[in-house]
Amino acid sequence: MDLKDKGLLVVISAPAGCGKDTVIAELKKADDNVKQSISMTTRAPREGEADGVDYYFTTVENFENNISQDGFLEYVKYGVNYYGTPKKAIEENINEGKSVILKIEVEGAGNVRKIYPDAISVFIMPPSFSELSRRLRNRGTETEDDIERRLKIAETEMQRAKEYDYIVINDDLTACVNDVLSIIKAERLKYSNMKNIVEKIINN
Amino acid sequence: MDLKDKGLLVVISAPAGCGKDTVIAELKKADDNVKQSISMTTRAPREGEADGVDYYFTTVENFENNISQDGFLEYVKYGVNYYGTPKKAIEENINEGKSVILKIEVEGAGNVRKIYPDAISVFIMPPSFSELSRRLRNRGTETEDDIERRLKIAETEMQRAKEYDYIVINDDLTACVNDVLSIIKAERLKYSNMKNIVEKIINN
Repeated sequence: MDLKDKGLLVVISAPAGCGKDTVIAELKKADDNVKQSISMTTRAPREGEADGVDYYFTTVENFENNISQDGFLEYVKYGVNYYGTPKKAIEENINEGKSVILKIEVEGAGNVRKIYPDAISVFIMPPSFSELSRRLRNRGTETEDDIERRLKIAETEMQRAKEYDYIVINDDLTACVNDVLSIIKAERLKYSNMKNIVEKIINN
Repeated sequence: MDLKDKGLLVVISAPAGCGKDTVIAELKKADDNVKQSISMTTRAPREGEADGVDYYFTTVENFENNISQDGFLEYVKYGVNYYGTPKKAIEENINEGKSVILKIEVEGAGNVRKIYPDAISVFIMPPSFSELSRRLRNRGTETEDDIERRLKIAETEMQRAKEYDYIVINDDLTACVNDVLSIIKAERLKYSNMKNIVEKIINN
């Protein structure tokens, strides 16, 4: 699929505790042209979860049908439940010129780039490792073992920051959101994405 | 010279009548970290022109000394007068982390890229060719022949927009300035420019 002159696919990854969900929520609020890719799952909705908002909830049969029709950008099975990123909604949004945010693990980000080479990737980092450690401890919801395990994973993930196009630091939320908005704006102004517009200007 | 982890060199070109001087003036007002490269010339200052603001005014002897010491990014001689872009001020600003704007003709932009491969380049376009034609005529300072000649040059220049990294349209001045500021911000967030910061975050 050629993303040129269409919307952008924006892959966002971050270690746990870097506030990526808040950043993505603010991006959507700030720019109507920013949409988030919604995952599909076969697990039952939890209280407060709505179909088409938190997930697309579906049956195992339907999910497996989608797999066989190459309908997922990527999918995984945790225990008995499937989780996947449906291609259709992403492609529809991009064709309409929207930028689609895809929140994905570091491991999955590389695979997405193979399928959509024009995707841009953003890695959100904490202002420092010690600040990340402080944030995770302040949540107060996890055991010390869990926190240590998360910090270990975070360190491994941060070592892979070089695989991303852009690095954004979430120290101040507003600044972080503005950084990502600037990245999206700048990417849309690249010549490759402006080619048709340049032609129109010359001929009008 | 390696621009990584330093300021950016931002090459800006535009056909006559696209308002590039106003855009650059606004960029400097909006961001203290944006500096403009000041040319050096051997011509006499005109009324109202200040040394170090409009140009660095100098003698032919000094200018030719600079040439022999490879002190110019590029220079030309119009009649008896030299005009050149001194390397020193650009490099000092970039080493201090400033972004330096270099306003340059389409012809010269390619040469700058050869010397500074990390330079980013922005081409400013009018919203349409007919609007450019209208703007040039509204100035009321030139003959119809001059205007026709300028429009011919503008068309040739716009055909070379593809040589630039980014295309920005000057329809609304504020929007145009914000576009360039977003480009500068995004470029600074590229992994290659954030490498040292990423290392610091992991180790702190």
